[in-house]
Amino acid sequence: MTATPLAPVRWDGHSLVLLDQRKLPGVESYLAFDTWQGVAEAIRTMVVRGAPAIGIAGAWGVVLAAREAWREGGQEWRQRLEGPLHQLREARPTAVNLAWAVDRMCAAMVGLAGDPELALTAEATRIFDEDLAANLQMGALGADFLAADSVVITHCNAGALATAGYGTALGVIRSAHAAGRLREVFATETRPWLQGARLTAWELSRDGIPVRLITDGSAAHHMRTRRVDWVIVGADRVAANGDVANKIGTYGLAVAARHHGARVMVVAPASTVDLATESGDAIPIEERAGEEVLEVAGQRFAAPGISALNPVFDVTPAALVDVLVTERGVLERPERTGLARLMAAP
Amino acid sequence: MTATPLAPVRWDGHSLVLLDQRKLPGVESYLAFDTWQGVAEAIRTMVVRGAPAIGIAGAWGVVLAAREAWREGGQEWRQRLEGPLHQLREARPTAVNLAWAVDRMCAAMVGLAGDPELALTAEATRIFDEDLAANLQMGALGADFLAADSVVITHCNAGALATAGYGTALGVIRSAHAAGRLREVFATETRPWLQGARLTAWELSRDGIPVRLITDGSAAHHMRTRRVDWVIVGADRVAANGDVANKIGTYGLAVAARHHGARVMVVAPASTVDLATESGDAIPIEERAGEEVLEVAGQRFAAPGISALNPVFDVTPAALVDVLVTERGVLERPERTGLARLMAAP
Repeated sequence: MTATPLAPVRWDGHSLVLLDQRKLPGVESYLAFDTWQGVAEAIRTMVVRGAPAIGIAGAWGVVLAAREAWREGGQEWRQRLEGPLHQLREARPTAVNLAWAVDRMCAAMVGLAGDPELALTAEATRIFDEDLAANLQMGALGADFLAADSVVITHCNAGALATAGYGTALGVIRSAHAAGRLREVFATETRPWLQGARLTAWELSRDGIPVRLITDGSAAHHMRTRRVDWVIVGADRVAANGDVANKIGTYGLAVAARHHGARVMVVAPASTVDLATESGDAIPIEERAGEEVLEVAGQRFAAPGISALNPVFDVTPAALVDVLVTERGVLERPERTGLARLMAAP
Repeated sequence: MTATPLAPVRWDGHSLVLLDQRKLPGVESYLAFDTWQGVAEAIRTMVVRGAPAIGIAGAWGVVLAAREAWREGGQEWRQRLEGPLHQLREARPTAVNLAWAVDRMCAAMVGLAGDPELALTAEATRIFDEDLAANLQMGALGADFLAADSVVITHCNAGALATAGYGTALGVIRSAHAAGRLREVFATETRPWLQGARLTAWELSRDGIPVRLITDGSAAHHMRTRRVDWVIVGADRVAANGDVANKIGTYGLAVAARHHGARVMVVAPASTVDLATESGDAIPIEERAGEEVLEVAGQRFAAPGISALNPVFDVTPAALVDVLVTERGVLERPERTGLARLMAAP
């Protein structure tokens, strides 16, 4: 049972069409954006989320910004793009794929004459296509590490919904399932946004992959009381030394995995690797409003006057990562030299 | 600023009055129970929760059962009590305080002639009074371990709301605050019931104790990125070897604390120590309905057809406990011999 592939980020020829992930799994609704401002806001408010997917959305945001700049400025379009490019690039701080995609779109502008839309559309399409291909490749590479009957914990949603399709961590899980090597997935619910409960459990069960939901706090207990072979997650940024920023909670899972002898696999396309960031300490960690913790779906649980800390990513030191999977190849125990070599490969 | 002490479990002379903790902090409503069946149901459905508090509630349930047995059976009241005692004892499986309190009430029945209500009321009152005194004593003993400016993570609610008053873990926090040695408390929200968000944050802020809410999954990140000195929690059962059953998530916090050099303090009255249970492996871990994970306050987040695992306690091996505080004294690195000696003390 494989359902229609999910299309969280799609270009309809004129607008960017985003699956509104805030409403899943209850409502499958799509929003069309034909301005770059709309795209930037959709990224900020998490209509679209997941590092690769926000990179792709950002690329289409650049197409829309260039269209407006050409329409309003003609040959002056490049100057008019500066503000929009900055704002798109900064819509969310932690995932480097967004900056990477905007920068790549900028590079594609070099030497363009006349209306840039067609050339930029082609580049954004390439970014999308390459991400999909990378996921399929990473799925195969990562699944090779899983032995028969593997039990996996995954966190947040690093699936088709977070990418052009197929997914990073969930791509590996899909490939392992297709190869008959997956026993079961435990999906952590992932407070405060509940991406695991809302997105991952839905996405996997839609494809007939055995999944059960667990609370974030229970993962260590399950590692102690039953066999868990792997923690498999995506990444929002991999620093030059192999440190990994990912959804808050990943680090605690990695610490618990090391304590129990489970292995940690990080699955992320090369666009997530940021050799310009020396280590995890230099990765900006987005802090969102405390209300996301104080409330669940608009219903407030905490008493008036209570405040909350809401860092939405954390950093897992490279020393806790057993395997880093990219479409360019795999690194066991990633470190600076090996990662630089992998990124320099063609 | 110290508010009116909380009275989660109170005898009004005829009925057991319970603060309905499912509705806190939004609504402060009290329910009166004048049948043992009502008390058992209130324990099962978490109107009252927290190991010492359900022990106390169970004791009053025995008073109500004995009243009914005397009214309906006269001198035959002991035989009629057997079923009710069994059901009260088994209303929830993990916290041993419930069985302990019911057994203690049974012991108080020995040699009673005539209507047992008065004698049993006296015994239930003693159980309540002793728990309150134990909490005050444990607060003082535990706070002695905290240095100036201590930062503490606590989990679930081991507060006034979970006891006769003052609290176990929160009793230590209260005493440390009163002694001017507490910088701040981070309260984990504690999915799925959100006792941290709903109860602990409310209870501490009510007393003017600085508290901020964090998600369960973020605790390890905070330990890595800021100073956290102590994880201080209560317990539902301490086995003879010092293993500790407590709210799901405690074990992961203890693993993370050890990884970061933070210390773990478990605060539990002697009624929580069960020398008849050899080790944590023998402690029954309550599994509640998966719906508690799939839903938040009746609103379903997971897609239809998804299932969840919902163990509501976990076991922290004694080796991860730095300090065990009871009203009879304190054990650093608790183990079998020291614990037996402490429990044998007068």
